[in-house]
Amino acid sequence: MLTAAYDGTEYHGWQVQDGVRTIEGELNRAIQGLTGSVTEVIGASRTDAGVHGLCNRAVFDTESTIPPERFAAAINTFLPPDIRVISSRQVPDDWHPRKVPTHKTYEYRIDRGEIYDPIRERYAWNVWGDLDIDGMREAAAYLVGTHDFTSFCAATSPIEDKVREIISIDIEERDPYGMSGLSDPSSAADGRTGSELIIRVKGSGFLYNMVRIITGTLIAVGQKKLKAESMAEILNARDRTVAGQTAPAKGLTLVSIEDIKKT
Amino acid sequence: MLTAAYDGTEYHGWQVQDGVRTIEGELNRAIQGLTGSVTEVIGASRTDAGVHGLCNRAVFDTESTIPPERFAAAINTFLPPDIRVISSRQVPDDWHPRKVPTHKTYEYRIDRGEIYDPIRERYAWNVWGDLDIDGMREAAAYLVGTHDFTSFCAATSPIEDKVREIISIDIEERDPYGMSGLSDPSSAADGRTGSELIIRVKGSGFLYNMVRIITGTLIAVGQKKLKAESMAEILNARDRTVAGQTAPAKGLTLVSIEDIKKT
Repeated sequence: MLTAAYDGTEYHGWQVQDGVRTIEGELNRAIQGLTGSVTEVIGASRTDAGVHGLCNRAVFDTESTIPPERFAAAINTFLPPDIRVISSRQVPDDWHPRKVPTHKTYEYRIDRGEIYDPIRERYAWNVWGDLDIDGMREAAAYLVGTHDFTSFCAATSPIEDKVREIISIDIEERDPYGMSGLSDPSSAADGRTGSELIIRVKGSGFLYNMVRIITGTLIAVGQKKLKAESMAEILNARDRTVAGQTAPAKGLTLVSIEDIKKT
Repeated sequence: MLTAAYDGTEYHGWQVQDGVRTIEGELNRAIQGLTGSVTEVIGASRTDAGVHGLCNRAVFDTESTIPPERFAAAINTFLPPDIRVISSRQVPDDWHPRKVPTHKTYEYRIDRGEIYDPIRERYAWNVWGDLDIDGMREAAAYLVGTHDFTSFCAATSPIEDKVREIISIDIEERDPYGMSGLSDPSSAADGRTGSELIIRVKGSGFLYNMVRIITGTLIAVGQKKLKAESMAEILNARDRTVAGQTAPAKGLTLVSIEDIKKT
């Protein structure tokens, strides 16, 4: 099992598709380069085009005599610089990365500047204006727990069972450049707000576009276009059209996958 | 006066040079596109190739009737997406951005993972292994104050007076992905350390490569290749060869310029 980190900007998502670059496709190619055998990895999370990953998992069979822990360093020489395998280990033959029980955590980053910050532009969505953060937290609380998330799933998804469990949603305000430590923060960047908002969603499974639709809906609450209490109705409606917009892919990063039972 | 933010990755630094893309060159071109007049801006900080800026300043004369505060939004349509003017205002005719007394703050980011994080790779230097952070802080304290920084200036610099004042050096350890909030942080990224180190240097003026050489030297102290106490000797030597390596440009960002007297 490989644990892979990647900047998703230049990729058409995780899953192999004909004629385009994908993370899975690059991993297959690199494993073939290293071992000489054609391989198809199985991924833990099929992240969308433009979404980033810090710790996605890819499992494959190999006859290679390279020790499992050494695979990470060996395979990186066959990968493009925006994909890195950060660790590797042996797992049982029947171990499937989407069937073992895990908790996944995604972070969605929002750059709150009046004009977007070019240094954060690849990894954040720029949303300018007042946001009612307390209202967003109140709204998020409605989503925690086990619910039918049909309203928060791309309408095109073929998946039937849309019941999922969200364990927590944290909304963190952060100063990405330590501006608050300056003697006169307001003068420093000529009125620029350096503030960043991170929406961190932890769950046992996610539907297609789910974190991005949750983010778009929470931002609509923050902008007072939706009320926090309306989240209950949105869940009950089981209708994608009543939730908020799908936030752009670039702001989303899969930051952790935790095993619930030790494998 | 324009305040400009930029991702320096694709640029040969701030200052105009023939045949290559520079931040200053792009600003001159954009102002000409907007106003129709040839312009040469004067910058506050001539950042190196690959260094990023959050709030550099560019001053120019114009006959334009566009209100000063409106310039920011108008000029952005003429700039590439990795440069943004975040604010604009009128300054007195004799105002020179390198002659007004200011405090500048630079941040240098270090990614402490065993394998570099592709999501932070454009903006951080990957340094793996134990670092004696207390030793680095002790070493940094020797540099605070007014000193001859010849040992911390590129040997090629033509500048004669190498006395500068450092107001503060803060070394902050940060968890860039909120890993510490997970129930079992060690399991989350399969042994990966999510840790980031930020070296934040505030001063009234900087020499060529000064923050990058300070960073390289502090890292050498962190790695116990140099002793914290040796900083006094390094300063006294006034010899570039006795300090540490020049840290890579990509980890450095000019994060603030504060006016000391109100203009």
